[in-house]
Amino acid sequence: MSGRPNISKGLDHIVVDRSSISWVGGETGDLVYQGYDVRTIVPGIPYESAVHLLLHGDPPPQDPSQEVVEALRRYRAPRPATERVVDALDSKLPPLDALRTILSAMGDGSFGYPPTLDDGCRLISQTPVLLARFVRAARGMPPAVPDPGLSHAANYLTMVLGERPTPERVSALESYLVLLADHGMNASTFALRTAISTQSDLASAATAALAVLKGPVHGGAPSRVSDMLDAVGSPELAETWVAQQVAQKAVLFGFGHRAYKTDDPRAVVLHTIARTVADPERLVLAESVERAALAALRAAHPGARLYTNVEFWSAVVLEGVGLPRELFTPTFAVARTAGWTAHALEQAADNRLIRPDLEYVGPPKGRVWPRPLVGRGTTG
Amino acid sequence: MSGRPNISKGLDHIVVDRSSISWVGGETGDLVYQGYDVRTIVPGIPYESAVHLLLHGDPPPQDPSQEVVEALRRYRAPRPATERVVDALDSKLPPLDALRTILSAMGDGSFGYPPTLDDGCRLISQTPVLLARFVRAARGMPPAVPDPGLSHAANYLTMVLGERPTPERVSALESYLVLLADHGMNASTFALRTAISTQSDLASAATAALAVLKGPVHGGAPSRVSDMLDAVGSPELAETWVAQQVAQKAVLFGFGHRAYKTDDPRAVVLHTIARTVADPERLVLAESVERAALAALRAAHPGARLYTNVEFWSAVVLEGVGLPRELFTPTFAVARTAGWTAHALEQAADNRLIRPDLEYVGPPKGRVWPRPLVGRGTTG
Repeated sequence: MSGRPNISKGLDHIVVDRSSISWVGGETGDLVYQGYDVRTIVPGIPYESAVHLLLHGDPPPQDPSQEVVEALRRYRAPRPATERVVDALDSKLPPLDALRTILSAMGDGSFGYPPTLDDGCRLISQTPVLLARFVRAARGMPPAVPDPGLSHAANYLTMVLGERPTPERVSALESYLVLLADHGMNASTFALRTAISTQSDLASAATAALAVLKGPVHGGAPSRVSDMLDAVGSPELAETWVAQQVAQKAVLFGFGHRAYKTDDPRAVVLHTIARTVADPERLVLAESVERAALAALRAAHPGARLYTNVEFWSAVVLEGVGLPRELFTPTFAVARTAGWTAHALEQAADNRLIRPDLEYVGPPKGRVWPRPLVGRGTTG
Repeated sequence: MSGRPNISKGLDHIVVDRSSISWVGGETGDLVYQGYDVRTIVPGIPYESAVHLLLHGDPPPQDPSQEVVEALRRYRAPRPATERVVDALDSKLPPLDALRTILSAMGDGSFGYPPTLDDGCRLISQTPVLLARFVRAARGMPPAVPDPGLSHAANYLTMVLGERPTPERVSALESYLVLLADHGMNASTFALRTAISTQSDLASAATAALAVLKGPVHGGAPSRVSDMLDAVGSPELAETWVAQQVAQKAVLFGFGHRAYKTDDPRAVVLHTIARTVADPERLVLAESVERAALAALRAAHPGARLYTNVEFWSAVVLEGVGLPRELFTPTFAVARTAGWTAHALEQAADNRLIRPDLEYVGPPKGRVWPRPLVGRGTTG
């Protein structure tokens, strides 16, 4: 009720903290983990080594990181009380809703404040195991125990698919998990840091992050890329279909990003990975749609610097890996548990309550309730 | 990697949006809902009328709001699939962890985007019912169905206590619920708005809010006020006990607030309400501790403008109402579902992705992985 403040709706360009975890160079198309350009380590490093890098700041002494391999193995078997909650979930529940409840159910009072590296390894290790438990039950597959001899990526894929995946699929999923493991600040990581800022615990914070990731503007859209490719149907129809969409001002999924004003490096790497696992016809279809969409979008929005975003090629890679599209965003979350852990530890190390303001623009103080109130002579 | 930005750690004084729901006058000690000073409507208005005011912007045509009474009654019976998840929760789970999973379990795919008034009424109505279901099971009490003839407050208290509460207790809880129903911007409401900003749904957003409210710096501390009163033991020991705590630089719970630089109006009203339900000896103890703490804190921090906050008198009121202390923060959340709904609807009405920045201060780009990578000749 003093002078009108500046409104920072969306908080664009408001810098909320310093971070040494990853750098997103939106103008230059860079994604850097602790000094390592992701294009130089993907494909190639195991997810366990990426976890090590993000949590410790340096590469492990060997690949895969034995420390992380052992920590993830130690926590791979979830607690029976958590499994009972997962088993009580309705089989018709969308997996993304199931995963939110799974993350919350992991929070059984044993995650405290400040968050620890152990909390993080438990979160990273058990998230795909519990998600796979739900998926198997929902599909009528028998329960499966995690295989301690498999890598994190191979174990997840084996549990979800119900069969031993090909090395190409494991390798492609591994690359996907590393590329999506962190991405500087974003809405879900920000919600996680906000939770930690109140001295809440890592399970709560990860649940908050997933609740935010769920929105299609953030993480909830890669399956719509697959739906879009289905709708186009074949490469020679791509131009016509895209032109119709643009004419109707319909959204083309998988293009444009708040941060990147050039190629998203993850999209570029995922495109090359798609070539190793995607069905060849699907790959040609996706490339045709990408080409047509970029041409049409750039013609419709001259100067807008529109590029393919990570969702587009994520969808093609995850299809190629054998995952159903309702698991695309949950698998994004499986990858991101590494970054969430790193950000939770960093936030707690130098913490301050995150609490912005609002400008009140409602009726001024002084309205009088129109009736006498119970237990009061007057409303005053 | 350009010029050093200003860091807005904690986002103090960053105004993230305009809002017409409530106004927190930190300098003047005001809390206003849509133009109504809470001190003029509490005690007195039923929770249902406060919900009406917050969601519609004006008082209902009668008290309690028949529209809200009917909407809450319509949703009072939760879905069996959600109840099954609640019934699968470990009885030893802290109720605040249980409530996070309960809110998530309500999100069964039927909450969409944008959030609706109906979504909100379902959230508001079922949160206490499902929480009470968990509490009863955890205490070995038989399941109970909600009573459609009771008010929102009376139904919650009856279900949790397992007996019909006195009118004084219902009235005191009702006042508490109205006073805690909204509070401008705060960390949990901000997390909820962040979730809605990605076009996530209300059940997800409320889950994120609860995950943030859980932190003791935000909503998780009123039970520690009760613990503190227990530790002091009797009024004549208050001064000595407080002096020892201050000398040891230990925290005194229930004092100081980021926003208020004078009396928190909620604390003032809750103090008067405590007189109607608190055990007389407990009331005297609390008043002695409050007096001693304010004197000691002000002496130790001259000029710091320290006042009793809402947690202090919340604890005494909720004790008097008959609630165990592990339900204090969950009951805060029960109250706040009204404000969360109002903020979710307001955010969605003029939405923009909330996504601040971080300044990257890690190692510069260009580090080279120390070993050859699988499937690559070099690391380049």
